[in-house]
Amino acid sequence: MYDLIIAGAGPAGITAAVYAARKKMKTLVVTKNIGGYAASSATVENYIGYQFISGAELAKKFEEHLKSFDVEIKENTEVLCFRKLDNHFKVETDKGEYECLTAIVATGRKPRLLGVPGEVAFKNRGVTYCATCDAPLFARKDVAVIGGGNSAMDATIQLMSIANKIYLININNDLEGDEIMIEKIKKSDKVEILNNTNTKEIMGDKFVNNIKLQVNKSVERMLDVQGVFIEIGSMPVKGPGCDVNTNKKDEIIVNKRCETDVPGLFAAGDVTDVPEKQIIVAAGQGAIASLSAFKYISKNIFDS
Amino acid sequence: MYDLIIAGAGPAGITAAVYAARKKMKTLVVTKNIGGYAASSATVENYIGYQFISGAELAKKFEEHLKSFDVEIKENTEVLCFRKLDNHFKVETDKGEYECLTAIVATGRKPRLLGVPGEVAFKNRGVTYCATCDAPLFARKDVAVIGGGNSAMDATIQLMSIANKIYLININNDLEGDEIMIEKIKKSDKVEILNNTNTKEIMGDKFVNNIKLQVNKSVERMLDVQGVFIEIGSMPVKGPGCDVNTNKKDEIIVNKRCETDVPGLFAAGDVTDVPEKQIIVAAGQGAIASLSAFKYISKNIFDS
Repeated sequence: MYDLIIAGAGPAGITAAVYAARKKMKTLVVTKNIGGYAASSATVENYIGYQFISGAELAKKFEEHLKSFDVEIKENTEVLCFRKLDNHFKVETDKGEYECLTAIVATGRKPRLLGVPGEVAFKNRGVTYCATCDAPLFARKDVAVIGGGNSAMDATIQLMSIANKIYLININNDLEGDEIMIEKIKKSDKVEILNNTNTKEIMGDKFVNNIKLQVNKSVERMLDVQGVFIEIGSMPVKGPGCDVNTNKKDEIIVNKRCETDVPGLFAAGDVTDVPEKQIIVAAGQGAIASLSAFKYISKNIFDS
Repeated sequence: MYDLIIAGAGPAGITAAVYAARKKMKTLVVTKNIGGYAASSATVENYIGYQFISGAELAKKFEEHLKSFDVEIKENTEVLCFRKLDNHFKVETDKGEYECLTAIVATGRKPRLLGVPGEVAFKNRGVTYCATCDAPLFARKDVAVIGGGNSAMDATIQLMSIANKIYLININNDLEGDEIMIEKIKKSDKVEILNNTNTKEIMGDKFVNNIKLQVNKSVERMLDVQGVFIEIGSMPVKGPGCDVNTNKKDEIIVNKRCETDVPGLFAAGDVTDVPEKQIIVAAGQGAIASLSAFKYISKNIFDS
């Protein structure tokens, strides 16, 4: 019987594990990989304390920090379900079953892919899924934002003060979302909105050079851009949550103590409904979830 | 007119400022010092990404990160009040007045001092005010915890799995707080509770060696200890909040978006009612508050 099982080892899961280890909780981390989505970020400039670090390097520092503690880790393993029994959880994974008193879901999320040629090849070579992370890398460049909703518009507004020119590529007739964002974008000299437009291919040599579009399902058009921000949404990786309350985006609803509606089950990081999908926010939530789990055991389980 | 004024430059305020700079918000940081309470921690082992770093070193890295961005900073300056006007704030400081569209209170907190000889001299040389931060430094040592409430008991429970022997020094007749914590402590072989006991002096050479007690207002007693955990509470440094909702501990009440009850006024870090007073948690909140302020301007203030 573990005191705590953590699903996922991105910034939230790793921070939760470090805090649990320092509290001497008997902890198991079950994860497909170590580092999480953070590891795929080209350059991280907003993890405070490191001015410039690649996502991969930061993930490595996180991993070393985790492994400096006596925490059991099962890699290449996927949690299928946390099942709540009387006063503990049964955890089903693709490699076997475990039991624990408390659990933290920190499985993160994954971006929705556009599914066009060049998208995978140019990932981190001009193709990005996170404007907050990567917009500053495109100062005075021409870029395309793919999408027509609030997150695409948010990316566009962020880029308006940074990039030279922004093409907003929208498959629908018009933008859909907050009116004030739409107005800001339509007022900007820097933004060209291309409605009824599909992205067909992303091209380049070492980095992105241009994209091929199809307008009104017929006319082909090429654009020269150095950056492609794909903002067509993302999905929480929420398998383990099973019977936990979620919002309409399928994100696990937590309060500021990272409690879910299931007593003893906590969630942290990008899988939750906290809107800021940022490394430092996820790490902070990991610490909160872990300390909340410790308090839960102190208050509810006498002979732990 | 600033887009954002941040009061305080600990982990929360610095992170908020870095995020604001990346959003190109016109930002002013007003603070007494840079680094905050975090800078006074002897060793930080739970800021993920740095396995071992002193509070002072980490604060220096935070400061360098902050100063790598184009953010205006007024040091040695204290915010007296954020006064909400129609759609902006007037900020009164001891050095002059400023105006801003949004504001973040990140002024942190300070521990309540015991007020005995030796306390200041041995700070970070055995005397500590944060069990979560420093308990692991006292493995197999004899320590005293000063206090008789939940935070003193929480410190004691944390130390039970780490220290050799814990004296819990309580000025009252009995412990007061959660029954299950009291029972756990009374069951432990490692803990000796000294009720009706005042701490009179903390003594040592380079580090703490012993403390002088007075039992039942008469008998003197000396204890050999290497650590003294002072857990008699702490106070938020809340001047700037003025008319903002607080809990009964005088902490600013925030939701998980770091919003206060005053539209446009946000709060982050140890000054808030989030129970975990941790660097990584404060930094995560700083990021959230800053992104919330940016969204507030996007949605509510058209011509920003």
